[in-house]
Amino acid sequence: MKESNNAVVLLSGGLDSATTAAVAIRDGFRVLALSVDYGQRHAGELDAARRVAGDLGVAQHVIVRVDLRAIGGSALTADIDVPRNEDPTADRIPVTYVPARNTLLLSLALGWAETLGAFDIFIGVNALDYSGYPDCRPEFIRSFEKLANVATKAGVTGGTFTIHAPLIDHSKADIIRLGTELGVNFAGTTSCYDPDASGAGCGECDACQLRLRGFAEAGLPDPIAYAGR
Amino acid sequence: MKESNNAVVLLSGGLDSATTAAVAIRDGFRVLALSVDYGQRHAGELDAARRVAGDLGVAQHVIVRVDLRAIGGSALTADIDVPRNEDPTADRIPVTYVPARNTLLLSLALGWAETLGAFDIFIGVNALDYSGYPDCRPEFIRSFEKLANVATKAGVTGGTFTIHAPLIDHSKADIIRLGTELGVNFAGTTSCYDPDASGAGCGECDACQLRLRGFAEAGLPDPIAYAGR
Repeated sequence: MKESNNAVVLLSGGLDSATTAAVAIRDGFRVLALSVDYGQRHAGELDAARRVAGDLGVAQHVIVRVDLRAIGGSALTADIDVPRNEDPTADRIPVTYVPARNTLLLSLALGWAETLGAFDIFIGVNALDYSGYPDCRPEFIRSFEKLANVATKAGVTGGTFTIHAPLIDHSKADIIRLGTELGVNFAGTTSCYDPDASGAGCGECDACQLRLRGFAEAGLPDPIAYAGR
Repeated sequence: MKESNNAVVLLSGGLDSATTAAVAIRDGFRVLALSVDYGQRHAGELDAARRVAGDLGVAQHVIVRVDLRAIGGSALTADIDVPRNEDPTADRIPVTYVPARNTLLLSLALGWAETLGAFDIFIGVNALDYSGYPDCRPEFIRSFEKLANVATKAGVTGGTFTIHAPLIDHSKADIIRLGTELGVNFAGTTSCYDPDASGAGCGECDACQLRLRGFAEAGLPDPIAYAGR
């Protein structure tokens, strides 16, 4: 902890970011949660983010709208079908990859952190399950951290930004165990890329498969609903 | 020029970005212009960006909305007065600095470039006149370029992104001379941080002062209107 105990935590409504926020709270930070409405197909994420923010009792929660549909390029923001029943651990970059998404999310977090006088930013990226996403790797996080410290007034006038990615080398089962230990209410989270109208997961997209497998490996029940189960 | 002759050019509606786009066209790129509606006080910029895009005959012009007002922090996006009649070359970071703005703009440009299969991004930053803005310096541009090449599918699978900042060491007068040579219609551009309802510049904010001084130094007439002149 440095100049301030405020930390900006990127909160998507998924279980990784919920656990990340719980880690920040455990580590003594006052959490300011930032969610981004980027025109994602699964906008129910934002409702989940609000529930998670409420459950964790964060100090503030802001949702920034960015119309990424204007630039398209992903199954999550354009009219491309979300793949089902593919192997989520296959060595490929999935069509659900959103071009430069984490760069954009961290840019917004950085702007808000600077406004708040905070120097700590948390992001729930995970290099194991998302090996196909270049912006979930440690080298991306290190590179953004360097950028943050040359890009900002706060960074060049004495402060030092730290980008925390506490889950980067955790398996999904590890994350679920850690979140459970920290009291995260996973019932409020969502993971599916293509949920039905009630918000139930499809059970078949990469995100659902990874989640279900993670709870199974952790030996814990997944408290959310899945269509047709 | 590399894998593609498409280039994404950040276009604000000001004279620097208009000249930058003209440089990209001169250098043989097919220009895809990106403007960002970030809730700026001077939204007339976007009308100017449309005029500039039309005058230059760019291949495409997209405006992405990002609600930066949600995170505040600058005289350009929050309820802070724009300073008038200050010395624009003073060694300070002005209140018109928008936290992490160029990081955000480049993130959006990067996402769009990746979607388009483009590897060249142009930004009209200038380290001389904007010495107080950390994200207008060469080290920022180099750091973002490194980031782009680890952050993206395109960057890690063989392509190499280049961030072009052709005006970075030009004076305002140099930029005006260069733009004039390249046929930029400066009458369509705008610079004022706080224009009146008709769009006329105040003549007193940092941006107006730098512009007026630049035209005077270049020995050329500034074709836009200023309030009370």
